[in-house]
Amino acid sequence: MRFALLGCGVVGGGVAKIVDEKVPSLELVRILTLPGEIDDPRQTSDIGDIVNDDTVEAVVEAMGGLEPAHTFILQCLNAGKSVVTSNKAVVAAFLPEFAAAAEASGAGLFIEATSGGGVPWIASIVKARRIDALSEVYGILNGTSNYLIHSMETLGTEFDTALAEAQSLGYAERDPSADIDGIDTANKCVISATVAFGSLCRRDIPVHGIRNLTAADIAFFRSSLGRAPRLMARAIQRDGAYAACVEPVLLPVGSVEANVPANYNLATLVGDTVGTLKFYGQGAGSLPTGNAIVQDLLDCAGGERPAYATETTLQWDPALLAGDYVFRSSVEVPGAQPMGEGPDGQTYWLLHDADCEAAGAAADALLAADPAALMAALGTTA
Amino acid sequence: MRFALLGCGVVGGGVAKIVDEKVPSLELVRILTLPGEIDDPRQTSDIGDIVNDDTVEAVVEAMGGLEPAHTFILQCLNAGKSVVTSNKAVVAAFLPEFAAAAEASGAGLFIEATSGGGVPWIASIVKARRIDALSEVYGILNGTSNYLIHSMETLGTEFDTALAEAQSLGYAERDPSADIDGIDTANKCVISATVAFGSLCRRDIPVHGIRNLTAADIAFFRSSLGRAPRLMARAIQRDGAYAACVEPVLLPVGSVEANVPANYNLATLVGDTVGTLKFYGQGAGSLPTGNAIVQDLLDCAGGERPAYATETTLQWDPALLAGDYVFRSSVEVPGAQPMGEGPDGQTYWLLHDADCEAAGAAADALLAADPAALMAALGTTA
Repeated sequence: MRFALLGCGVVGGGVAKIVDEKVPSLELVRILTLPGEIDDPRQTSDIGDIVNDDTVEAVVEAMGGLEPAHTFILQCLNAGKSVVTSNKAVVAAFLPEFAAAAEASGAGLFIEATSGGGVPWIASIVKARRIDALSEVYGILNGTSNYLIHSMETLGTEFDTALAEAQSLGYAERDPSADIDGIDTANKCVISATVAFGSLCRRDIPVHGIRNLTAADIAFFRSSLGRAPRLMARAIQRDGAYAACVEPVLLPVGSVEANVPANYNLATLVGDTVGTLKFYGQGAGSLPTGNAIVQDLLDCAGGERPAYATETTLQWDPALLAGDYVFRSSVEVPGAQPMGEGPDGQTYWLLHDADCEAAGAAADALLAADPAALMAALGTTA
Repeated sequence: MRFALLGCGVVGGGVAKIVDEKVPSLELVRILTLPGEIDDPRQTSDIGDIVNDDTVEAVVEAMGGLEPAHTFILQCLNAGKSVVTSNKAVVAAFLPEFAAAAEASGAGLFIEATSGGGVPWIASIVKARRIDALSEVYGILNGTSNYLIHSMETLGTEFDTALAEAQSLGYAERDPSADIDGIDTANKCVISATVAFGSLCRRDIPVHGIRNLTAADIAFFRSSLGRAPRLMARAIQRDGAYAACVEPVLLPVGSVEANVPANYNLATLVGDTVGTLKFYGQGAGSLPTGNAIVQDLLDCAGGERPAYATETTLQWDPALLAGDYVFRSSVEVPGAQPMGEGPDGQTYWLLHDADCEAAGAAADALLAADPAALMAALGTTA
């Protein structure tokens, strides 16, 4: 199958390398590149050269960002070319539009690499749904934040030190906010929930990150609660309703999640006959993410055409994700009880039985008064 | 697709229930049953009624054991009927014969449910191999032994107490030897390695189980070594050679494997571009194993026809699985150094840099003199 590549950075480069070295049935014939960077006869800076090339059956979008990715993906789908993308932001924002365009032209839309990098996560959800209704999807879907938390846990370093090290290793961007504030995880959560529940998940789910996590927090959670924090995406459906959120969750130190090291991902689905399945692997990186894209290309070449939910059939109900929450704050947390003092004299508060939306609103209000405050759910997921 | 069921016990019953409630595209039309137990018009005690029924496209073998499963599977394959089986013993013993019969008649042979129960493990190996060469497969593939070890760890009980409880819960057979002596795991290891490496794995790999594990061992390994035992299947290939074995492995207490609870399985593959992928789920049980079989039936109905290695192209080299081993024994272990005393005064010995075959032979010799002795590898798998 002849395919084109939009963007040849870390991910696109991995795709090109894997196809070149390992997959003779795929042929990379066109590469969209910035005008000044063309040094290969396959390269072009004109998307029209790809959209109008009838020999190109599939296009890999690995540019990232919303525009021009959104426009280019639509042009390709409208021209009957299947699209494989690793771009979680554009898929979370425009999945219904893309799915409708793909269906109209008979092209395929493939999104494995958007969520979980090399982990076969989206395909596993789709496969599980051939038989089961899925009641839950959740997991660690951002390798950068897991790397930071795991570094702080194992080395006792502070957040900024861990972040600087992750940036020097290429595990974190120079602007880390998409990773550490949960935005990247939220895009993956929206995509995962939409595919898992067969109902379009709203985009404005509650999202809180790990920016304010300290080494003292980690020590307190471990010694006082026997728990370790992980930045978790969680989505649940029941009786026609659903909820989804992204937040730090305090997990039992003996849980599988709390022992996920370095920049690995661990994503879980719960089906009514298969039970709990977990999938672990590299959530980012040139070759793992490239591998996920090449797997999608092979499925595309084999004739697969995935279908996606384009409408919301479940009702939003944040009460489905409710429980106790811990706050660390120098100011009082309304409705919460003091639960202890950390090693540096900071105060931790326990808010009983709040839903993810109410807890998130409490955290947002608190952060206005104490910009260093932290919120974390007392999850029981094992 | 119309299919028949050979054996309607725990696994077969799960298949019938899942198909009946959830998969209208599959129709269970024949059930092979013992002569005295027929109470449904679909039931027959004559395999000929199934083999000679031209409307039956696939047969699920869920009888277990070597005969008559082996004969029935061959009859079905020779008649052009695809076979889906959960029977690890018969597949480990006769895979080349089955694969040749399937290829000759154009039938499919599906073995997902032999290894890892509901965990999509064999399919994940096959999928990863579309792109990558796999250098390693390993994992916890026997839920019963993991349940026993985890019970001993969390409750501090002795092996016999944990076993009796597992038997009362239906997690262990009345004769537990296939599970606790590693035989069941060895069959899954042979199948996994054969599929992963594309070369027929020998059946007589070194196998040692957990029968002699004590609560004192677990306490000593944790306090002195920071490690926890798991019964692991391991297989590795490099430079045209391979090794495989089943033995208790002492893993860092913070590893993902050491935190797998209850009767769950966790299986890992290592590919050259995708890296390390792990798959976690229920390794047994009516619905999870039934789910794996129904997934295979759906793949079969979709036209898939998996190919299997029927020849050994890699050379056996046990040195590929070598490292340090710990023994607990009241008699001296030749070539080993004493490494400490357990809480009850028992002696632990360290054997440096032995391969899995040499360590297994040392364990077998030791067990003749001290029937309560234990061997465990000091694995570094994380």
